[in-house]
Amino acid sequence: VSTFLVRSRAGHYPVRVVPGGLARLGGFARALGLRRRAVVVSDAHVAALYAWTALRSLRRAGLAAELVTVPPGECSKGRAQLEALWRTFAALEVERDHAVVALGGGVVGDLGGFAAATYLRGLPLVMAPTSVVAQIDSSIGGKVGIDLPEGKNLAGAFYPPRGVLTDPLLLGTLPERHLRAGLAEGVKVGMAVVGAVFERLEGDAGRLIGRDPLALGRAVLGCARAKGELVSRDEFEAGPRTALNYGHTVGHALEVARRYRGTLHGEGVALGMRAAARLSQRVAGLPERDRLRLETLLDRLGLPRRLPPVGVQTLLGGMVQDKKRRGGRILWVLTPWVGFASVPRPVDKRLVRAVLVELGARAGR
Amino acid sequence: VSTFLVRSRAGHYPVRVVPGGLARLGGFARALGLRRRAVVVSDAHVAALYAWTALRSLRRAGLAAELVTVPPGECSKGRAQLEALWRTFAALEVERDHAVVALGGGVVGDLGGFAAATYLRGLPLVMAPTSVVAQIDSSIGGKVGIDLPEGKNLAGAFYPPRGVLTDPLLLGTLPERHLRAGLAEGVKVGMAVVGAVFERLEGDAGRLIGRDPLALGRAVLGCARAKGELVSRDEFEAGPRTALNYGHTVGHALEVARRYRGTLHGEGVALGMRAAARLSQRVAGLPERDRLRLETLLDRLGLPRRLPPVGVQTLLGGMVQDKKRRGGRILWVLTPWVGFASVPRPVDKRLVRAVLVELGARAGR
Repeated sequence: VSTFLVRSRAGHYPVRVVPGGLARLGGFARALGLRRRAVVVSDAHVAALYAWTALRSLRRAGLAAELVTVPPGECSKGRAQLEALWRTFAALEVERDHAVVALGGGVVGDLGGFAAATYLRGLPLVMAPTSVVAQIDSSIGGKVGIDLPEGKNLAGAFYPPRGVLTDPLLLGTLPERHLRAGLAEGVKVGMAVVGAVFERLEGDAGRLIGRDPLALGRAVLGCARAKGELVSRDEFEAGPRTALNYGHTVGHALEVARRYRGTLHGEGVALGMRAAARLSQRVAGLPERDRLRLETLLDRLGLPRRLPPVGVQTLLGGMVQDKKRRGGRILWVLTPWVGFASVPRPVDKRLVRAVLVELGARAGR
Repeated sequence: VSTFLVRSRAGHYPVRVVPGGLARLGGFARALGLRRRAVVVSDAHVAALYAWTALRSLRRAGLAAELVTVPPGECSKGRAQLEALWRTFAALEVERDHAVVALGGGVVGDLGGFAAATYLRGLPLVMAPTSVVAQIDSSIGGKVGIDLPEGKNLAGAFYPPRGVLTDPLLLGTLPERHLRAGLAEGVKVGMAVVGAVFERLEGDAGRLIGRDPLALGRAVLGCARAKGELVSRDEFEAGPRTALNYGHTVGHALEVARRYRGTLHGEGVALGMRAAARLSQRVAGLPERDRLRLETLLDRLGLPRRLPPVGVQTLLGGMVQDKKRRGGRILWVLTPWVGFASVPRPVDKRLVRAVLVELGARAGR
């Protein structure tokens, strides 16, 4: 069992990482002062596996509990699903002191969290992340939102949850590809924030893919704690938290280019990290050896080595819609060494093109 | 010239009430630290009158400035317009340090403010209110949002602006019916919060309808300051700020029943105050004399005396969707005397029905 606190403008909130924790969701909610009613927002896949455990625990703790599901997959994170949730909350006569529990991966957390942030100007929110990405990254820090046709996460809010309950045992049922993709975000935390996390992932890579519960628990706790420390210092992403955008410049652009299909978020981030590391080697002094350590770790985790057939121009176009852009320029988080990220900075476009082509992008559109 | 500060979780922000202030919008924005670009969100009516002044002032102060208009009227405050604004911001390549200026009445402030609150997880927001309701009430306090088919303001956020620039001279061009309806919110502040404001409105009623600039400036400043003090003490509407819901239980229900057509918000609030005052007289000890003072003031301001032909049941149904409801009960803010509001409390449904029928609602649906 391990609990740590994350600071936000609304006070501190606990992140509790405990194997088997989902069965104690009700007690966790009560300890947060939530006592009347909880609406569990989940996707159909996750709900089939875990909704029963969550609802039972809430009810045993004396809360009324309901389940609302959204279709699984990244394309659920849009305006239509947001509106459907708002209207479902209205139909369920949800009130200001009813809680929303986001039980699922990043999509459910972002979408359900944004619906909670905006219904009746904000309902209490509990994150119960079920994917690697959600457990180590997206459930912590209060970033919620949806995608627009023009780009990822363009509409959203900073809305801290009341608490996060993370059960690493839930990762046991993840599809293998999602497990691997999720671990890319762990590599990101290691590479851009805490060198020790990177080293532990190197040591545990085989065990992680083999779903060793102890290794998964260690990885989740290490990454989640690093993320928690970062957002405690920088809730609104004005400073150090930007380190977490490492790998996301290409990652987002790839998702936009492919319309959020075919490439998982973590796979895009893995490719983005390969690109950022190559740029870091050329302009930020990242030693060849460390760049290779990154690429080897990504290889061992079975993450993609080459971009899908997308044009360089299309990718660059997708980057221009990126939130990290300031004054029309595309900015890159670079890593001069393992565990350290630069502030976002521009990079010569010719170098960027060369690296993208090296990774398999088509020259041209 | 008068400026006061409002406290919010994000720090204090200034509310500047100054005749002719709109021509100094650019300097106001710069003083708030906004220097790059401003997107002025307005409705077509207001834009025709005032957008040029606003844009010129911003540009003279060195900001790039653009105008985005929404259709005028309460039906603009919906999901379609929110999405249109999000997508327009994307098309304009709006970035995190670009400001949104909401130039208009309550609808523009709520809708433009909510779009600003949620685009890129929050853009800096300046309120430039142009209607009575917006100047004395809705521009202050950070409540932004949209309506859903199920009810008013069901989706939204608490999102404090960077600053509010109020120019009472802009009220000179308001359609008379809107001027009268807006003054109902001033009466509300007087009746439920500050007795002295109520007395000043009684003294100035004729001058206000005659658009005497001094009387309008006094009323705006007095009400805005009272509102500012209230929200400084209670940003998230957990305590004293609920006083401002006086008159809104019936007001909202009426708007829902009429689908936001035919009745202006302030007209609904005026009828809601008549209902709440009658209930206050019966169950909260409001003296007959003070109830008559309220009704007389509303009469002198030309505000409606009778409900449109709506069924009592329909109205009660609309109240159930009200955010002030807790545990399924309909709660009322009552006034035992002028300038003092009770906490929201339930009232015997038979009394409510009787008062609604007395005010002209049809018995039945």
